[in-house]
Amino acid sequence: MSAQAPHNTLLIPGPIEFDDAVLQSMSHYAESHVAPGFVKVFGETLTLVRKLFQSTNPTAQPFIISGSGTLGWDLVSANLIERGENALVLNTGYFGDSFGQCLETYGANVTHLKAPIGDRTPLEEVEAALKEKSYKLITLTHVDTSTGVLSDVKGVAQLVRRVSPDTLVVVDGVCSVGSEEIAFDEWDLDAVLTASQKAIGCPPGLSIVMTSGRAIQAAQSRKTPPGAYYASIANWLPIMQNYENNKPSYFATPPTQLVHALHTTLTQITADVPGRFAIHTEVSDKVKAAAAELGLKQLAARSECQAHGMTAMYLPEGLVPADVLPGLLKRGVIFAAGLHKEIATKYIRFGHMGVSVTDPKRGDVDNALAALKEALAEAKQAKGL
Amino acid sequence: MSAQAPHNTLLIPGPIEFDDAVLQSMSHYAESHVAPGFVKVFGETLTLVRKLFQSTNPTAQPFIISGSGTLGWDLVSANLIERGENALVLNTGYFGDSFGQCLETYGANVTHLKAPIGDRTPLEEVEAALKEKSYKLITLTHVDTSTGVLSDVKGVAQLVRRVSPDTLVVVDGVCSVGSEEIAFDEWDLDAVLTASQKAIGCPPGLSIVMTSGRAIQAAQSRKTPPGAYYASIANWLPIMQNYENNKPSYFATPPTQLVHALHTTLTQITADVPGRFAIHTEVSDKVKAAAAELGLKQLAARSECQAHGMTAMYLPEGLVPADVLPGLLKRGVIFAAGLHKEIATKYIRFGHMGVSVTDPKRGDVDNALAALKEALAEAKQAKGL
Repeated sequence: MSAQAPHNTLLIPGPIEFDDAVLQSMSHYAESHVAPGFVKVFGETLTLVRKLFQSTNPTAQPFIISGSGTLGWDLVSANLIERGENALVLNTGYFGDSFGQCLETYGANVTHLKAPIGDRTPLEEVEAALKEKSYKLITLTHVDTSTGVLSDVKGVAQLVRRVSPDTLVVVDGVCSVGSEEIAFDEWDLDAVLTASQKAIGCPPGLSIVMTSGRAIQAAQSRKTPPGAYYASIANWLPIMQNYENNKPSYFATPPTQLVHALHTTLTQITADVPGRFAIHTEVSDKVKAAAAELGLKQLAARSECQAHGMTAMYLPEGLVPADVLPGLLKRGVIFAAGLHKEIATKYIRFGHMGVSVTDPKRGDVDNALAALKEALAEAKQAKGL
Repeated sequence: MSAQAPHNTLLIPGPIEFDDAVLQSMSHYAESHVAPGFVKVFGETLTLVRKLFQSTNPTAQPFIISGSGTLGWDLVSANLIERGENALVLNTGYFGDSFGQCLETYGANVTHLKAPIGDRTPLEEVEAALKEKSYKLITLTHVDTSTGVLSDVKGVAQLVRRVSPDTLVVVDGVCSVGSEEIAFDEWDLDAVLTASQKAIGCPPGLSIVMTSGRAIQAAQSRKTPPGAYYASIANWLPIMQNYENNKPSYFATPPTQLVHALHTTLTQITADVPGRFAIHTEVSDKVKAAAAELGLKQLAARSECQAHGMTAMYLPEGLVPADVLPGLLKRGVIFAAGLHKEIATKYIRFGHMGVSVTDPKRGDVDNALAALKEALAEAKQAKGL
């Protein structure tokens, strides 16, 4: 069924399993990064990123840069805010902490609004904070990979436009883009940063950032130079514009093979963007119902706070991840341990994104649920629970 | 002969042609970046980087980070020098200019010692500059991809140790590592930054940086915090140390497929490091003799300034790259146009690195020389020269 070597099924919240065609694109023969063939593919890939974000506003600008998702934080922090300006971080876990550190590295004054574990910051609290101080930007983690909490991006963006219209709305979409709906123009967002290896279904190695005209304007009207060189919007903007206009351009060598793989997966995804979100929701509902049947509570307690590309589940009292993960592995399934430092030993994470969800013939999700049931029973028995 | 789809032979100064096994590593199935299998491969790859640099000093530290070669400039500029400190750039072309801009982004005071096009800065000039001011670091481009000029890394390092022993010696080895000898410990270097896609023979997408204990010490004893987040040595150091000690660790998701490909190519290269430099020298001599026979002068006039992995050649008076490159392409061979802005239309660049050099069965270099001869004759005839 698959052209890939036999292997355990990777069902962590990224990297995820790959479609065969995507993986084959990774072994594309050597090409010049400024030759017509590659320039066309890179340009088309940028246009596909717009489609992925349901964006048609020509002032919006996608960036595809060699790097991890983390690099997107630098792109935001070194360009969209200046030393001494205020940033408000809606913090739903590990990744809010780290984004805050990145912002501080470039001199921002960071205020964290920490949500309780497994929940979002209430909109009223966000509103109160926005009224108290002038914020250059607000960040939120769309899906916190450490907890599976889904933020209300649309609601927060509406609130910001009402209360503090000039504040830039920045979304960390590393664990959401491709599995959660994002209507970039309609929701009036300013930056969504993501990475290739989660719901986008491409191997890791690409930082993907979508920016609004307002964000580009902020970068271009800085009073001080950008805080970074490699992560400088001023350095990359002409490159991205040229490639999308089918003109070769050079700032740093793009990872040609990864760009081919991204082109392949985005062509698949953008054939039906709403359909993709629908199937992720459907499969997520099924996973969450099955987990409940096994008596497993989710970290994200309220259903509107639950991501659709992953499920973080508390283990039964008395079990730690190391009791359960080996039993899953024995059955060919890889889940991830907890990551949120306060409760890391109490829960496990199941990533259900990309081909494992969209290609039911693989049977990945059903196999994983069956394996989870068996591995849990085995672990409980071993512990006499 | 090759498992790759038929394609024109890429003989630019990077990216270069790939070995089949390297390219196959790019389509490795999905893996967790913290699972034992990948941790072992990443750890071994770091150790192979040490071997590539002929380094056995345990205080030296390799870094492998998702990004383009350019990111290495940020790693140096944001960690090894502080705002207001002095940097001396030995400038042999395009890449010296850009490295200088990167250093300035992070607040360094940069002095450029510009060599004439096609030559190096004389050691006496470097010595005079070092005696005039206290420099935190000196940078030199080992091989300037824009001109094919080879710098005297060993000589400069010896000079620095004699005249200004605390100055960090930083080498931009993007276009040299894998084709030019570098004895990291013996030459007492502090940082060599490179990328995966040139003589290392891996697809683009990895920034590779080798640092000395002295450099790490400089990063750790800064009076101010590092200037970047993604390019912070403090953030990456424990990750690299853990992986090499076979312990999973997380700061940003590594590009797992590219790391596999790097592991494959470095395993091949490090089987005989001196042999690799010898064959590159031998083939380079052959290319340069053939070019001379065709009446083509090199940008790097003096033989000790000529790189061994590429040849930049002036075209005959009256011809521009666009007269010759299509004739080469017609014969299945891709060279690069000029890049140094003052003379870009006057020359072409031939990259001879990696499998095109080490695997004579491919016939890449002989075919390219034959194609060059024919394409030149054709172009001259068309122009009535």
